[in-house]
Amino acid sequence: MKLTRVCLLAIACCLPFAASSNDAPLNPTAAPARPKNVVIMIGDGMGAAYTSAYRFYKDNPETEEIEQTVFDRLLVGMASTYPASVSGYVTDSAAAATALSTGFKSYNGAISVDVNKRPLPTLLERAKKLGLSTGVAVTCQVNHATPAAFLSHDESRRNYDAIAASYINTDADLILGGGQKYFPEPLRQQFIAKGYQVLTDFTELAGLTQPKALGLFADVQLPWSMDEPEAHKLSNMTSKALALLSQNTQGFVLLVEGSQIDWAGHDNDVAAAMGEMDEFAHSIEIVEQFVRSHPDTLLVVTADHNTGGFSIGANDKYEWHPEVLRQLKSSPDEMAASAIAVEQWREPLATSLGFAIDDELFSKLERARMQGKKALATAIKHEIDLRTNTGWTTGGHTGVDVQVFAAGPGSELFIGSQDNTDIANKIISLLPKPKKDVK
Amino acid sequence: MKLTRVCLLAIACCLPFAASSNDAPLNPTAAPARPKNVVIMIGDGMGAAYTSAYRFYKDNPETEEIEQTVFDRLLVGMASTYPASVSGYVTDSAAAATALSTGFKSYNGAISVDVNKRPLPTLLERAKKLGLSTGVAVTCQVNHATPAAFLSHDESRRNYDAIAASYINTDADLILGGGQKYFPEPLRQQFIAKGYQVLTDFTELAGLTQPKALGLFADVQLPWSMDEPEAHKLSNMTSKALALLSQNTQGFVLLVEGSQIDWAGHDNDVAAAMGEMDEFAHSIEIVEQFVRSHPDTLLVVTADHNTGGFSIGANDKYEWHPEVLRQLKSSPDEMAASAIAVEQWREPLATSLGFAIDDELFSKLERARMQGKKALATAIKHEIDLRTNTGWTTGGHTGVDVQVFAAGPGSELFIGSQDNTDIANKIISLLPKPKKDVK
Repeated sequence: MKLTRVCLLAIACCLPFAASSNDAPLNPTAAPARPKNVVIMIGDGMGAAYTSAYRFYKDNPETEEIEQTVFDRLLVGMASTYPASVSGYVTDSAAAATALSTGFKSYNGAISVDVNKRPLPTLLERAKKLGLSTGVAVTCQVNHATPAAFLSHDESRRNYDAIAASYINTDADLILGGGQKYFPEPLRQQFIAKGYQVLTDFTELAGLTQPKALGLFADVQLPWSMDEPEAHKLSNMTSKALALLSQNTQGFVLLVEGSQIDWAGHDNDVAAAMGEMDEFAHSIEIVEQFVRSHPDTLLVVTADHNTGGFSIGANDKYEWHPEVLRQLKSSPDEMAASAIAVEQWREPLATSLGFAIDDELFSKLERARMQGKKALATAIKHEIDLRTNTGWTTGGHTGVDVQVFAAGPGSELFIGSQDNTDIANKIISLLPKPKKDVK
Repeated sequence: MKLTRVCLLAIACCLPFAASSNDAPLNPTAAPARPKNVVIMIGDGMGAAYTSAYRFYKDNPETEEIEQTVFDRLLVGMASTYPASVSGYVTDSAAAATALSTGFKSYNGAISVDVNKRPLPTLLERAKKLGLSTGVAVTCQVNHATPAAFLSHDESRRNYDAIAASYINTDADLILGGGQKYFPEPLRQQFIAKGYQVLTDFTELAGLTQPKALGLFADVQLPWSMDEPEAHKLSNMTSKALALLSQNTQGFVLLVEGSQIDWAGHDNDVAAAMGEMDEFAHSIEIVEQFVRSHPDTLLVVTADHNTGGFSIGANDKYEWHPEVLRQLKSSPDEMAASAIAVEQWREPLATSLGFAIDDELFSKLERARMQGKKALATAIKHEIDLRTNTGWTTGGHTGVDVQVFAAGPGSELFIGSQDNTDIANKIISLLPKPKKDVK
């Protein structure tokens, strides 16, 4: 694919940029042309329907206008996501993360290996070689496809144990997310022997004062954000990572992933999706503020692909009702688990849903409840889809281009249309040049 | 909504710009800061899934890379499309065209009137007052919602006859599209009395050497592009409009609409959608070349909304098969009409489809055929959806943001995220200033 011609003349530093809380414009001359630090943030599965829906979900119904979100402030372009031709036109997260980390297309399932299964240098490996600090902060297990393709290499994303074990050789400074089950005690001891602090309790994160650290805050993935409204785990991991990695005066590269936007999309769960979007948006805002106070930092946000064929409106009706989502007290999964656990579930579930359960709906949910938690969660999601008028076409991914958002030095490179491999190549081009020996 | 801050410093004329056939970069210094001519092109219903799918549809399977399209070359941003709050979050074409033409949100159904049904000045009215020539070229009837909101005012898009009659007062120089049935002979005579040539045969268009002209080339809408592969009607109307309107040395404003991308979306007809996309893309390429030879021309391309919840991939499979679409010989509607008209339909239909009809599919289609043309067309579209693995969520619109493409002087204003009303306001801000009387 030919690269989109992006004019580099004289447009540096003047993008829609890092809005402050008081909306004061940032002085463009304060930023250097090449970043010292790079933060790449991936909303897994976050197609444009998610960011548009999130704007409506966050809309203050008390005002006539619809308020902007961080995505509106930072949008600069879009990216195509298709994998290597051997895998057709619709990518999985592994091939997409490989493209974003290495600049090369590969087959679906590949973890930073090419179509011939040869390892490709990853963005974090390149950064580490240049003396930068590196880290990942994600809400999935840390050895899931996206972080794996930034940290490691494997011919298959499904080799979870091998991928986890390989992390001992990455020299990454921070690895934060879920996945305790993939790091048995002997492996944890290896990390400790190598100088890592290994954390498993999220409350320990606040006390962390220096790298290196392996934080495994759940057996597999972290809980849905909407079920821990005060926890802000991704935001907190992001804040901590910025604080710790910026101790390196040479700079750092950090990957942050809103991993479970995708999982909500696979589940066709618009409620959990908006909850994950909200936490991801908060995390972006934290980096946006960091860019403001550290104008030598480049922020690039994108999605690896779109998930679920999510649509804002469905069934021939020109309507979408985010007010239904704003009233929910927990995720459909959590509601189903709670309703399974008690005899008298109708009132508590109605309270969680924020609307009354009439006899017809009660019968429908009762039948689902008798089939178990998963069936009940599906029935609850279906009811929420009906009331919000949300549509889905798949439990998998789709091939539509995704958005690209950027701020900071070099962000002008991301204006317009590009391929996902271009994103990696642009970031790589902005890394510091290797120091030559002085003779 | 707060306007996205778009930095205007020093970035004029350096967008991904009007690629020539030899791909030579255009000299950015050749273009003035303010355009003389404006061409706004609307892909009705053309959400990002349509432009991504079109790239894959046009992909040359003989090459490893996926070739860029005109949309990739010209992308600069995205736009929100929601109507005035009284109509919720999902717009219709009337409210969206009102926003794009006037810079104001209104209710669904409004033709350039505000929420209190008061007329709002349209882009073409403003241009006419400034002494510019104006025109529309569309593939729907010329009095349909989008062109209507650029030419006229009405409290309801459904007042087709009144809207057609109102055009006599617009003083527009070119009105090209379909809609003979809405212009009875007495109305046509009024246009002739006012100095218009009234054309009803498309072959007459080539001989047209000057405005004004009312071209009505179909009873209602023009045929599907894929059923007239050599006609290139929208491209031809676009070329002719550029040639005729540029006779005005003061400049012109032209609206071009790929109207039936939307209609294909409403029909959940991916085959017709790609055919309409192809003709719209050709028309954009013609304007792209015009911008190259006339660097005083601003081109802005967008969609009014997304239609159909169209998804590239569906049903949990990570696949999309545009090769199925490339083999089709005509639209599903045309295939159904032909198959209804003959006794022996199996082989001719298989030829049109480009694949064999096995006994199971034959039985399915035979049952549909017995219910009539519409049912048979629906069955054919369903089979194409299965084979391409295409998804849909609605026969209506959805609320996802749409893309914005631009080239020429002022195009830098459209970088990033914006509202559809912002697009109108930016174009209006670029129109020539009214001449003041010299004392």
